[in-house]
Amino acid sequence: MNTGALIEQFLAQTLRTVGGRGGPPKLSAAVHHAVFPGGARFRPRLCLAVARACGAREAVAALAAGGAIELLHCASLVHDDLPCFDDASTRRGLPSVHRAFGERLAVLAGDALIVLAYQAVALEQRVEAAQRLQLVALLAEAAGMPHGIVAGQAWECESEAVLATYQRAKTGALFAAATAAGAISAGADPEPWRRVGAFIGEAYQVADDIGDAAGCSELLGKPTGRDAALGRPNAVAQLGAGAAQRRLHELVAAAIDAMPACAGEAELRAKFLSATEQLLASRLARPAA
Amino acid sequence: MNTGALIEQFLAQTLRTVGGRGGPPKLSAAVHHAVFPGGARFRPRLCLAVARACGAREAVAALAAGGAIELLHCASLVHDDLPCFDDASTRRGLPSVHRAFGERLAVLAGDALIVLAYQAVALEQRVEAAQRLQLVALLAEAAGMPHGIVAGQAWECESEAVLATYQRAKTGALFAAATAAGAISAGADPEPWRRVGAFIGEAYQVADDIGDAAGCSELLGKPTGRDAALGRPNAVAQLGAGAAQRRLHELVAAAIDAMPACAGEAELRAKFLSATEQLLASRLARPAA
Repeated sequence: MNTGALIEQFLAQTLRTVGGRGGPPKLSAAVHHAVFPGGARFRPRLCLAVARACGAREAVAALAAGGAIELLHCASLVHDDLPCFDDASTRRGLPSVHRAFGERLAVLAGDALIVLAYQAVALEQRVEAAQRLQLVALLAEAAGMPHGIVAGQAWECESEAVLATYQRAKTGALFAAATAAGAISAGADPEPWRRVGAFIGEAYQVADDIGDAAGCSELLGKPTGRDAALGRPNAVAQLGAGAAQRRLHELVAAAIDAMPACAGEAELRAKFLSATEQLLASRLARPAA
Repeated sequence: MNTGALIEQFLAQTLRTVGGRGGPPKLSAAVHHAVFPGGARFRPRLCLAVARACGAREAVAALAAGGAIELLHCASLVHDDLPCFDDASTRRGLPSVHRAFGERLAVLAGDALIVLAYQAVALEQRVEAAQRLQLVALLAEAAGMPHGIVAGQAWECESEAVLATYQRAKTGALFAAATAAGAISAGADPEPWRRVGAFIGEAYQVADDIGDAAGCSELLGKPTGRDAALGRPNAVAQLGAGAAQRRLHELVAAAIDAMPACAGEAELRAKFLSATEQLLASRLARPAA
């Protein structure tokens, strides 16, 4: 089974395990809507790629951790789309969760997804207890206070915020967790991989800014031009389009430089480069008509 | 140090560990506002009492688990008070979190508290790894889908819900988790204790219904008469005041009956009975003027 199919299967299985079974049907449907159909599943792909590069013999731990990170990502999208935040009407080309199910179920679906992320890792009996705990702690750090994704979102509520601190928490934390979790899954030291993930996260942020500024809303499946509308920082607005693209390539190069020596180093480097080209092409593409 | 002080100290310490350190200050303040000053801290008290009754030699595991359950409880209150749910203006005699900090920070504070609950248990190095994982799984079950507190809240969004199923999830789940966690902390079998907790949770729900109907808003620190206003089920409305009180005592008796044999059985039984009297008295008391 290829990586993409493995990830979809893991997410579907995780939702099935805790959904249904006499729970409230609309909550299950809202959670499902938040997770499927997915985006590019960058974070779990990254986690699995790092685990493989570090010589993981099995995908079980990386799949659980990467899947859990994807669930945290979905949770943050649902809460981020709420009327009190971005009030986004669409996400991945479909109505956002609060548009489809109402605000109450959107709040609860986000909550349920956070819980589910911990369940996905904690209940994975095939992974050694110490490793599972290390992953649970990593997820908590990436999600919560003071530097996780929730903190990142909270910087939007402050009158003063350092842009780099905001972006590191809002976007970087889950990417850094994805690479660190990949290393943990392979029994490798997560610390150097955290830096790799942080650079990738920063690159992703720049790519997203390029997409937002280029205005390919149909392709991104969400409204664009939001940064300008919401007065949020955007790399294209700050640097110009050409410099933003150069910045993206510099960040990917920095990620590759930061990679510690490992068995699958060359392959992972090639993957980073081709993923960057694809990401950039997708962000710059404009809808046919 | 007495139990109450131990619990406050644990909660304050947990918030300090992840708050501050360069995170967004308003989020830290909102989380603090959600946790302090607390209510009766019933759930962690119950967890510690069961751990002691089961012969736990140390309070560390029960304190972490009970504290985590209290954090999940606080998270659910913050989200439950949001404008899209109960739109409550006060909680524990103070402005609710969204009134004090705005809706966005209330959503995020709830999210951060859920994450914090897992952190509190997962990072407690003094507790054996297998035990910590068992507690993390228990927390997830009590919080999430299909039968945890988030699911309980989601039953309010369904057009049809079985009252007992709703209440078991909305109120019972955290009480059942508190007793089960107490047993796990002492190395005892959690299953029979789960039933004890479920009865206590049901009793607590009835006591709360009595308080809501009696209308002692000043004492409860939150608006009363809400069940009637929101068209929600209330034991007093269904059974009458006298029968509701009898039902409360029956449920406490059922909890005591369900208790498995343990070292501190007699003491715990006495504690349940005196706590019931206190709870009932507080719920029936009316403000001086």
